[in-house]
Amino acid sequence: MSILVVGSVAFDALESPFGKVDRCLGGSATYFSLAASFFTPVDLVGVVGEDFTDEDMQVFSGRDINLDGLQRVAGAKTFFWSGAYDYNLNQAQTRDTQLNVFATFKPELNEQQRKADVVFLANIDPDLQMDVLRQTAGPRLVALDTMNYWITSKKESLGRIFGAVDLIVINEAEVRQYTGEPNLVKGARQILSLGAKTLVIKRGEYGVLMITADSIFAIPAYPLESVFDPTGAGDTFAGGFLGYLASRPTHDDRELRRAIIFGSVLASFTVEKFSLDRLREITIEDVRSRYQMFRALTQFEDWEG
Amino acid sequence: MSILVVGSVAFDALESPFGKVDRCLGGSATYFSLAASFFTPVDLVGVVGEDFTDEDMQVFSGRDINLDGLQRVAGAKTFFWSGAYDYNLNQAQTRDTQLNVFATFKPELNEQQRKADVVFLANIDPDLQMDVLRQTAGPRLVALDTMNYWITSKKESLGRIFGAVDLIVINEAEVRQYTGEPNLVKGARQILSLGAKTLVIKRGEYGVLMITADSIFAIPAYPLESVFDPTGAGDTFAGGFLGYLASRPTHDDRELRRAIIFGSVLASFTVEKFSLDRLREITIEDVRSRYQMFRALTQFEDWEG
Repeated sequence: MSILVVGSVAFDALESPFGKVDRCLGGSATYFSLAASFFTPVDLVGVVGEDFTDEDMQVFSGRDINLDGLQRVAGAKTFFWSGAYDYNLNQAQTRDTQLNVFATFKPELNEQQRKADVVFLANIDPDLQMDVLRQTAGPRLVALDTMNYWITSKKESLGRIFGAVDLIVINEAEVRQYTGEPNLVKGARQILSLGAKTLVIKRGEYGVLMITADSIFAIPAYPLESVFDPTGAGDTFAGGFLGYLASRPTHDDRELRRAIIFGSVLASFTVEKFSLDRLREITIEDVRSRYQMFRALTQFEDWEG
Repeated sequence: MSILVVGSVAFDALESPFGKVDRCLGGSATYFSLAASFFTPVDLVGVVGEDFTDEDMQVFSGRDINLDGLQRVAGAKTFFWSGAYDYNLNQAQTRDTQLNVFATFKPELNEQQRKADVVFLANIDPDLQMDVLRQTAGPRLVALDTMNYWITSKKESLGRIFGAVDLIVINEAEVRQYTGEPNLVKGARQILSLGAKTLVIKRGEYGVLMITADSIFAIPAYPLESVFDPTGAGDTFAGGFLGYLASRPTHDDRELRRAIIFGSVLASFTVEKFSLDRLREITIEDVRSRYQMFRALTQFEDWEG
């Protein structure tokens, strides 16, 4: 049960009240792949420049991540993003974005990638997402992420791809921006009416809300005493969530809920250190142990009269 | 197992994108009493003016709410608060506050009130809260609420009463304001170090976080498609939470968690209509039914390998 991710592999510059890094590994497909690889083999499709060294490439090593789809373009530079956070770690302020090799990125899937069981279209141009989707051969589950930039600049394209996938992973603020509806549940229903079966709404430090036609699941984020860098938390969440699902034979409500917890667990590790540092050092035992802590955090008993 | 609440009975003027009311019933002790009375007899200590009519008093009728402690002052007016909300219903903008009879409120407990099993000191001057606490005779559980105004104007008094109660109900923003600590868990530990055993942090539409020395419980708010008026949600929560606890022989972690759910359930009803309108029409069966819906909303199973 393999999973295909199409997205960015990047260098980030980050600044928060807890520190400053001028160049570290980042990118949606990077965070996603590491998280998903705890559960299932990953096929990564992306592009880097000549400045992405063999040492940088080590982030993927020792994991079941196939890099046949990761192009390295000679004489060009890797996608670069610079962001800053204040004490409110919920919202990054973008300082600089240099698309570099990403500006002309046009993914072509090979035979193996076309047959992927689960597909994640990370946050890229919705027309490109559609182009990738058309190259696949009937995957069991297709999910996408997006961002405010595409809601503003390509709303029609976004509406088309929203209607063509099974599952949408999106921020709370983006639901409100896309629909103009202040009530989140109503906004979610509007987006689902376009065709997707499941909407997974990321609420940062407040957790996740999953809405389908006949079920709502809400879960807080894991409360941490040390949050250093929220970069990549959303992509890590998506990786844990979809990676777990790809490893399971069925995707019923029970499995979707477990997947939400595994995604939340992985995201809670990511934010504990800068860049992918924490994600690189944890083991599946750490993940399972925090899953149990999540149960302890949220469980309550039925009421006895 | 009776519960004593000391707080405001008020008239409110409210405006939100969903409507406008020039004068309706409000006040922390009013919301609290109605919510708590679903579970346990309530003793209300407060004050109103001559303008608080017998018809207004009907809000308490048919419930086990003892009004011996509700003074009516001739020739004076009832506490009045005017507030507005925009589409973001999380934060009220105060337009006007007229203390009226509340300016000289100095609660004197009678014999029965002194012997209350559970005491809730609603949001009033922390020196008054301490004065009331000193009049009580060893209650099983004392809880308080406060607000940003007292953190700014009476921080020392607030610190003293924080150290003298068992349980503090407080907003997320107030934890950060009081401690100057952006991390909520760290801030909570700072406040608990003053003496209270349990901190219950209200996060509006994002639910509740309960922190003790050895346990954290987090729960989202019930996602509603119709939220009209968040006024009183926090006091309703406190009423359901403490009312349930007052009705139980033990206050262990299991019961505290159930109490958080009952509080959340009652608050979710309050916001569905203006003022106390929804709280007045629901039955204990409605409350029990939504408790079950809360379980369906938040439950997930253990992971199977």
